[in-house]
Amino acid sequence: MEHKNSLRVVLVSPRNPLNIGAAARAMSNFGCTELRLVNPYEVAFREARSAVNAHKVLENAKEYPTLGEAVADCALVVGTTSIGHRALEHPLRRLELGGKLIARKLATAPVALLFGSEKFGLSNADMSHCHWLMRIPTREEHASMNLGQAVALCLYEIVRSPAAAKAGPETKRAAQAGDVERITAMLEEILEHSGYVHERVEGSTELKLRRLIRRMKLNAHDAEVWLGILRQIRWKLLS
Amino acid sequence: MEHKNSLRVVLVSPRNPLNIGAAARAMSNFGCTELRLVNPYEVAFREARSAVNAHKVLENAKEYPTLGEAVADCALVVGTTSIGHRALEHPLRRLELGGKLIARKLATAPVALLFGSEKFGLSNADMSHCHWLMRIPTREEHASMNLGQAVALCLYEIVRSPAAAKAGPETKRAAQAGDVERITAMLEEILEHSGYVHERVEGSTELKLRRLIRRMKLNAHDAEVWLGILRQIRWKLLS
Repeated sequence: MEHKNSLRVVLVSPRNPLNIGAAARAMSNFGCTELRLVNPYEVAFREARSAVNAHKVLENAKEYPTLGEAVADCALVVGTTSIGHRALEHPLRRLELGGKLIARKLATAPVALLFGSEKFGLSNADMSHCHWLMRIPTREEHASMNLGQAVALCLYEIVRSPAAAKAGPETKRAAQAGDVERITAMLEEILEHSGYVHERVEGSTELKLRRLIRRMKLNAHDAEVWLGILRQIRWKLLS
Repeated sequence: MEHKNSLRVVLVSPRNPLNIGAAARAMSNFGCTELRLVNPYEVAFREARSAVNAHKVLENAKEYPTLGEAVADCALVVGTTSIGHRALEHPLRRLELGGKLIARKLATAPVALLFGSEKFGLSNADMSHCHWLMRIPTREEHASMNLGQAVALCLYEIVRSPAAAKAGPETKRAAQAGDVERITAMLEEILEHSGYVHERVEGSTELKLRRLIRRMKLNAHDAEVWLGILRQIRWKLLS
């Protein structure tokens, strides 16, 4: 997320300082710095031990008496919800889409992302400040998430790179066919000496071994290791 | 994730029962049930309060003396890491790609996803059980995540639906042009009566208002609400 300093994470009436600290830690993990609190229950949150290595985010957190003031400088206000049984008056988007829209908006303007209290979530009055709502795709029977985990998931989706989901080129050089064939031949020799291969079926065993070794998809380094191992076994068997 | 019961979340030497509970909660949120613990520090983890509504996952968690036994039935073993300064002997994949590969594998075989202790992560011995390693794309300066949050992120990426990132059709019916034009006309009439529009600039104001109202992108229901509001104001102004 290039413009992550334009994201304001707004916790509305959070109750547990551990959760506030965990939210701060996730923000620090993903490079977000603007934490805002509306009416926190506990004033001692700034010392939360759960904010491992993220005390700077907590120290700089701003407190607001009302949600309106906390989001006043934002061009887009998005509320999070696990729905429950309330009929929603807002468009509801899944995190996969919502995160993308938020990341796009952040390029040009500040965005507020709202999380309600652990116990009740966002109220209808809180939601009326929102342009739309966002839902993490949890299962219906257990939709409600821990606050710190919910913050982490939303930030991850916003910084997530679709390009990174594509497999890159193999970093390790594959073994050359010549080395693979030498491994095959050496293994066959060892098996002959150890009585695994009977002369009667020797031909079919050779083909089976050749396929077996190819299925290992050896890289160049591991092929050398295997050659060393087999050489040593052969030496011991024949000595 | 269709085959989520094939996923085994394996916590290796976890220290804090709150984190074990938080992991269980995230698993329940995303419909995973198989929690496995290797050598947990605290034996009293099964009562962890942080496992809100996920006590069944904790109750059914299995304990193993060694990692080898904990992953014995799995066809793919993936370790999580925040790297740090260790040189890794394994292929390392970002969560975006790793999650996709795990989801694919789960369709045919059980997969183990490993998380190390809060303090030290996975050891080199733990990692030697892994086919590959996975990394959450946190920033380098603060890479280490809270255990419960890391579990939640990995499960989310595995259940995540790329299709859900595409915008669906608008659910609300857009206002008809006729209603939008009636709103424009009524607002203009009100502004004339209230002295906002001067005769000299009347023409250009009409065009400005028409564009202003179109930019509201009203839906059918909101168009009716605005018509009601403007009708009332006009009535009051002219009475």
